Amino acid sequence: MSADTIVQIAPAEPAGADLTDAMIEIGRRARAASQILATAPESRKNVALTAMAAALRNREAAILTANQVDVEAASAQGAAAAHVDRLRLTPDRVEAMARGIEEISELADPVGRVLARWDRPNGLRIERVATPLGVVGVIYESRPNVTADAGALCLKAGNAVVLRGGSDSLGTARAIHDGLVAGLSHAGLPETAIQIVPTTDRQAVGEMLAGLGGTLDVIVPRGGKSLVARVQEEARVPVFAHLEGICHVYVHGPADLDMASRIVVNAKMRRTGICGAAETLLVDRTLRDSHLAPLIDSLIAAGCAIRGDEAAQEADARVEPATEGDWCTEYLDAILSVRVVDGLDAAIDHIARYGTQHTEAIVTDDARAAEAFLERVDSAIVVHNASTQFADGGEFGMGAEIGIATGRMHARGPVGVEQLTSFKYRVRGSGQTRP
Amino acid sequence: MSADTIVQIAPAEPAGADLTDAMIEIGRRARAASQILATAPESRKNVALTAMAAALRNREAAILTANQVDVEAASAQGAAAAHVDRLRLTPDRVEAMARGIEEISELADPVGRVLARWDRPNGLRIERVATPLGVVGVIYESRPNVTADAGALCLKAGNAVVLRGGSDSLGTARAIHDGLVAGLSHAGLPETAIQIVPTTDRQAVGEMLAGLGGTLDVIVPRGGKSLVARVQEEARVPVFAHLEGICHVYVHGPADLDMASRIVVNAKMRRTGICGAAETLLVDRTLRDSHLAPLIDSLIAAGCAIRGDEAAQEADARVEPATEGDWCTEYLDAILSVRVVDGLDAAIDHIARYGTQHTEAIVTDDARAAEAFLERVDSAIVVHNASTQFADGGEFGMGAEIGIATGRMHARGPVGVEQLTSFKYRVRGSGQTRP
Repeated sequence: MSADTIVQIAPAEPAGADLTDAMIEIGRRARAASQILATAPESRKNVALTAMAAALRNREAAILTANQVDVEAASAQGAAAAHVDRLRLTPDRVEAMARGIEEISELADPVGRVLARWDRPNGLRIERVATPLGVVGVIYESRPNVTADAGALCLKAGNAVVLRGGSDSLGTARAIHDGLVAGLSHAGLPETAIQIVPTTDRQAVGEMLAGLGGTLDVIVPRGGKSLVARVQEEARVPVFAHLEGICHVYVHGPADLDMASRIVVNAKMRRTGICGAAETLLVDRTLRDSHLAPLIDSLIAAGCAIRGDEAAQEADARVEPATEGDWCTEYLDAILSVRVVDGLDAAIDHIARYGTQHTEAIVTDDARAAEAFLERVDSAIVVHNASTQFADGGEFGMGAEIGIATGRMHARGPVGVEQLTSFKYRVRGSGQTRP
Repeated sequence: MSADTIVQIAPAEPAGADLTDAMIEIGRRARAASQILATAPESRKNVALTAMAAALRNREAAILTANQVDVEAASAQGAAAAHVDRLRLTPDRVEAMARGIEEISELADPVGRVLARWDRPNGLRIERVATPLGVVGVIYESRPNVTADAGALCLKAGNAVVLRGGSDSLGTARAIHDGLVAGLSHAGLPETAIQIVPTTDRQAVGEMLAGLGGTLDVIVPRGGKSLVARVQEEARVPVFAHLEGICHVYVHGPADLDMASRIVVNAKMRRTGICGAAETLLVDRTLRDSHLAPLIDSLIAAGCAIRGDEAAQEADARVEPATEGDWCTEYLDAILSVRVVDGLDAAIDHIARYGTQHTEAIVTDDARAAEAFLERVDSAIVVHNASTQFADGGEFGMGAEIGIATGRMHARGPVGVEQLTSFKYRVRGSGQTRP
């Protein structure tokens, strides 16, 4: 399907059973493309990625024009400033997308890695080898860069992808998609390897959640909590996602106050809107007199509002009372809940009760306490003496990520190209039969 | 919940909303137990497993008595002989269950393995460490040994398990379960780590498929095709399963006829009822004159009926005509479909069209063709010059398996203790904050 075909489909948007059929057809094309991608050589995938980056740069004017239309429509409909900002592209942002694709092309090929290898006493040689997952569905909201990032990451891992962007950014997404398709075409790879759903009908999301007739292997939602919740609730295929990141920092005695202060302020305030931002500070009771007030003071000095338990309120008059609801709130804002806890067990219990198994940190000089925290806290990422904001595929050295998963199946933590692969067993014999 | 408590619940079996509540309570207990198991030391898990094996031996008489009741009830209801045989225990079978548990205790602990370790330029040290999956649900049919195998495998991997056996074997399963609980208790581990659903009401299966109020992490169905199909269709949680094993052997030219014959006969006839048994033989057209008739002859000599295409019928008058349906039939019997194909591409296309992504083998002396087959065939297990019947966790050296999975998510191929784990990231710093 060429980009031109997509544009032709759009004017007469299918609905109901027709839309179901059209979506399943998209899935079938993706499955067929995935079978070609599965054995595509690394060099060809990288040629496509490099050509995609060039195509985005070449099409900068067209992309910005399409984006201007989307931005004006959103503004006319009264979209909030933050929403319009997420939607808006600039020459710098287009260049960042192109550079992001080039960085993905520079990653090692995740397909074909030998994950394990052993011989059996009967002479069979067994290898566990990474293979693509197959077909990935990505459902996202306003950010147009997801089109480029997700398309490139899936291609690198040998997967076909079906992209369903926000209705407010469909024009922008299509202009970017044109560039991705140009790259695929340049490399002789199937253009259906990266498809974009050509309708804003919300039924299309339902069709993806139903699995597109068994052709989708996994769905990745990228967006706000209501989108992720809907996907997690309704999807009939596996989902890589996190619903919320209610991340904790636990300052345990003994802990260097300066280091604790720097880590806590960074974990909360570096960027408040990302999933790895801290939402609750737990301070050990042994540090109540020495650390609590200075920690609160540095947070407030950095512009953070504090909602705390009685001890926190006593430590600083500017602290507002925390309610039960605060312990389970992902503020994504310059607000932090603060609680004094009675030791490691109480901190771990608090995290088990209110946490979302995303990222938690302990700040302590006590190596034994740190190891116990790292072992016992059941989160995708557990951190000793560093900021929770390192919860990021790039910071982990994994390259770009398609998201962060908090489930326990297949992918957990940052979902990069390696996490977008599966595996199979290759068995080499010399005539062995089973006794 | 002690074994006694279970027996008390049974007489007044809950139904409807009460059963929903009772099942969700089982899930909650499993989740609570899983949190204790997650950090249980290897030694304690092994003490429990060893004590379980001893308890099964000590309770042999009670287990056989309970089994006799189940067997008589099944016979009285006119169950088929094969069904009754799967249900029936003997002293040897009890001993095999006990020995199987001891073998699981001897496996390396899959929890806590460092799967990867690297340092970042900023000094952060990152480890990817294996953790338990959480709570496993196992839904199975008549075979009572699944109670022991699944209970022990899940415990070894630090998971709690909810077992739902066949209604015809509930008495036997409970008697075995008593022994497992005795082992847990002996080791000081929560008895709710291994629970058995104490009702034969089929609604209980539906409750498990719905996830027991979000407490089940994965479901493993063990049984016939209709059970697996229902679980795959209805489960709202991930499933480790294979629906069918339509396994292929492709004899490619040049291939040694003796070796090909031994492998094909073994792949089909060693045991016809297992999922790794071959169901279709593909013979390359270049071998039509040299290999086809002798291969068919050795299969028929071994007691196998052949359904073939025209070439196969011409090669041997005893070959019945194959219909389109034969290429997609898992006979699980001494029947094989045989087809002549035009080269490697045609063989791979046939497998892609009719296969179930379980296990496929190529027999050839041509190393390039073998490697192309191993790379391009999208099955959990691909084999060169050996029997498909090696598709088994034990034969892979992985120890006991809870089943074989053909999906691409998380586990693929034999599902042993390692596949019953997830992972998390441990990050160790010295005060790093993110710029």
